[in-house]
Amino acid sequence: MNALLLVAHGSRRERSNDEIRELTERLRKANRDFDVVDCAFLELAEPSIPDGLRQLIANGASRVVVMPYFLSAGRHVVDDIPGDIEIVAREYPDIEIHQAPYLGAATEIIELLLKQAVT
Amino acid sequence: MNALLLVAHGSRRERSNDEIRELTERLRKANRDFDVVDCAFLELAEPSIPDGLRQLIANGASRVVVMPYFLSAGRHVVDDIPGDIEIVAREYPDIEIHQAPYLGAATEIIELLLKQAVT
Repeated sequence: MNALLLVAHGSRRERSNDEIRELTERLRKANRDFDVVDCAFLELAEPSIPDGLRQLIANGASRVVVMPYFLSAGRHVVDDIPGDIEIVAREYPDIEIHQAPYLGAATEIIELLLKQAVT
Repeated sequence: MNALLLVAHGSRRERSNDEIRELTERLRKANRDFDVVDCAFLELAEPSIPDGLRQLIANGASRVVVMPYFLSAGRHVVDDIPGDIEIVAREYPDIEIHQAPYLGAATEIIELLLKQAVT
């Protein structure tokens, strides 16, 4: 079973966390490549990244793509998310966990910004 | 003269601010709707949003689109950026300053995430 875990920073403002949950719901409906789509948070909201991964694995995921919903390649993307993945990768050596490029790395961001700017 | 001001949060990590400046350079090259494209930061980096706007106006901009490079509609997008715009709008009542929807509001984010997830 192939799973996608969208990872966001997490906020003290619950409305922002709910925005991520709604986005996850839209991803779930739009996607054709993953059997399961879920979300997790680096901090300040639940589930944590390790708990999100463990839940997907408990539900039968054999491969998980972790997608950082971040705009910059800061410490969170470079150190913290890989660190969280590593914790679970050691617990489940047979599960393939792969970190996708963070959103801000997408070259299409340029077009998208320019499109938003003229709406 | 029609200007675009990309507004990012700003970071203590200068590399992240430079990422925004590089993105602005790419926007400048790719864009066909704006005569000038520049960036500004809400905090922690220069120029500030008011200073970025004032610079564009000093250089001849008569209309500025402010594009929030943010993923969630938090306090920054809802209060802080409009507040900064308002300061400059009062100084220059003849200049049209318009805040575009923040990046995370783009419906195309869904496709983009799914595309990034399978690369």
